[in-house]
Amino acid sequence: MRTKIWSAKQEVEIGRDLPLVIIGERINPTGRKRLAAALEQGDMGLVQEEARRQVQAGARVLDVNVGLSGADEAGLMVEAIAAVGEAVDVPLCLDSARPDVLAAGLAAYSGKALVNSVNGEEAKLAEVLPMAAAHRAAVVALTMDDRGIPTDVPTRLAIAEKIINRADKLGIPPEDVIIDPLAMSVAADDQAGLTALHALAAIRHEFGVNQTIGASNVSFGLPDRRAVNSVFLAMAVVAGLTCPITDPTVWEIKRTLVIADLMRGHDEFGMNYITAYRSQFPEED
Amino acid sequence: MRTKIWSAKQEVEIGRDLPLVIIGERINPTGRKRLAAALEQGDMGLVQEEARRQVQAGARVLDVNVGLSGADEAGLMVEAIAAVGEAVDVPLCLDSARPDVLAAGLAAYSGKALVNSVNGEEAKLAEVLPMAAAHRAAVVALTMDDRGIPTDVPTRLAIAEKIINRADKLGIPPEDVIIDPLAMSVAADDQAGLTALHALAAIRHEFGVNQTIGASNVSFGLPDRRAVNSVFLAMAVVAGLTCPITDPTVWEIKRTLVIADLMRGHDEFGMNYITAYRSQFPEED
Repeated sequence: MRTKIWSAKQEVEIGRDLPLVIIGERINPTGRKRLAAALEQGDMGLVQEEARRQVQAGARVLDVNVGLSGADEAGLMVEAIAAVGEAVDVPLCLDSARPDVLAAGLAAYSGKALVNSVNGEEAKLAEVLPMAAAHRAAVVALTMDDRGIPTDVPTRLAIAEKIINRADKLGIPPEDVIIDPLAMSVAADDQAGLTALHALAAIRHEFGVNQTIGASNVSFGLPDRRAVNSVFLAMAVVAGLTCPITDPTVWEIKRTLVIADLMRGHDEFGMNYITAYRSQFPEED
Repeated sequence: MRTKIWSAKQEVEIGRDLPLVIIGERINPTGRKRLAAALEQGDMGLVQEEARRQVQAGARVLDVNVGLSGADEAGLMVEAIAAVGEAVDVPLCLDSARPDVLAAGLAAYSGKALVNSVNGEEAKLAEVLPMAAAHRAAVVALTMDDRGIPTDVPTRLAIAEKIINRADKLGIPPEDVIIDPLAMSVAADDQAGLTALHALAAIRHEFGVNQTIGASNVSFGLPDRRAVNSVFLAMAVVAGLTCPITDPTVWEIKRTLVIADLMRGHDEFGMNYITAYRSQFPEED
């Protein structure tokens, strides 16, 4: 099953039998003071810089989140979409907890976007899915609902199924629903990694849809988080992850995903890996 | 399916639902000049040092290979088994290309050993399997035969089946056959990683047996081989690897396998990982 999204200038296809698609996560003010300050002043220079850096590092889609308490988030989203579109050609993943912000973003976006996110909560389904359907957008769907994040695989599977069915009824086909089965902290729950890996495998087996996952939660509270995230990502790729939301400017993460593609038979003569390595360590030549 | 092997002092159990078992690969003179020189002089001090270091680093089984051209390999194998048995308690994997050396090793070993290796070649099957059966040993079985190493998954699966059946007829049950589906260089064949991962998954699915793999071939000819081997190992664990033959004294490899166990739900409160990290970087506390 293949998901196609596009900007005015570029189409990206996501699928099991295709190279991994990295969705760059850095355009997000959460925990990033400099970016938050720039956004507060309506300065889109840093957003454009982050866009360029991530595409340069291998991101093929960019997540755009401008959520700031007290700010005109809808206005900022529209500005950010325009600014990013000037800086780079890749399609965007419009990311907000607020449906009105997603609506403003979808209206401003030229192309087929990814909407981040919907989940099994009735309010979310009712507000976000029709909007995504109207714009023929694809959606990221988290396997949680009004009861919270289930700790078991069958409930996550059931939520995925519910969202896929609900989307389908509204005219969003299964290939335009990208499931995020949620990786939680293994330091808080030592079964959390296994649950995420099993959920990925079960969802792939049952529905064959594309899947994303934010790997950074998994390492919360542990030393050398990049190593933990990298190992989890490599394992998740085998379980069914096709489009990780992550930071490709971190070499350990980028390296892991490039090597994972090499191991999946998607890197002819290993040239992508060798090129990535050489651009990271040019002094060794 | 669980494989049990033991020394006079310690039993180790290998299985899908158990923590990974690292088989330490360092007692092998191939490419190790110092160890080769020590063995040539019949000096077992370095062998004992390698045994202690690897067990300290997390190896739960040790591979013992004393193959030197021109040397009395059978005699050295018997001496090495005794020397390693004095230094550490873990069970051993007796490793030689020569059936007479394996026979001498099996005769000298107290416990249930792992024999490394048999493959689909008729001569190997005829010589090594009856000997392993007579000693009630477990065997490592490579998915290659008189025709060489097959590049496709179905042929590797067929060779695994042939060896499992042949072993069974001689009284070696399937749980005592550990398949090595062979990871070859991705730089030489860019489908080699995918083939190994698919073979692991197919063999697990069909036979449910334990599997080992030597990860180092996969990175031959590439930069940052440890990173490549680590990513491959993490992926292989999801596909069906349960007892990698590797070097646990290399932190990147050890870290990968400890994190993989954490992600498989085999590390309560993440304490194994945190302990391993702290013993690697004591200065940070």
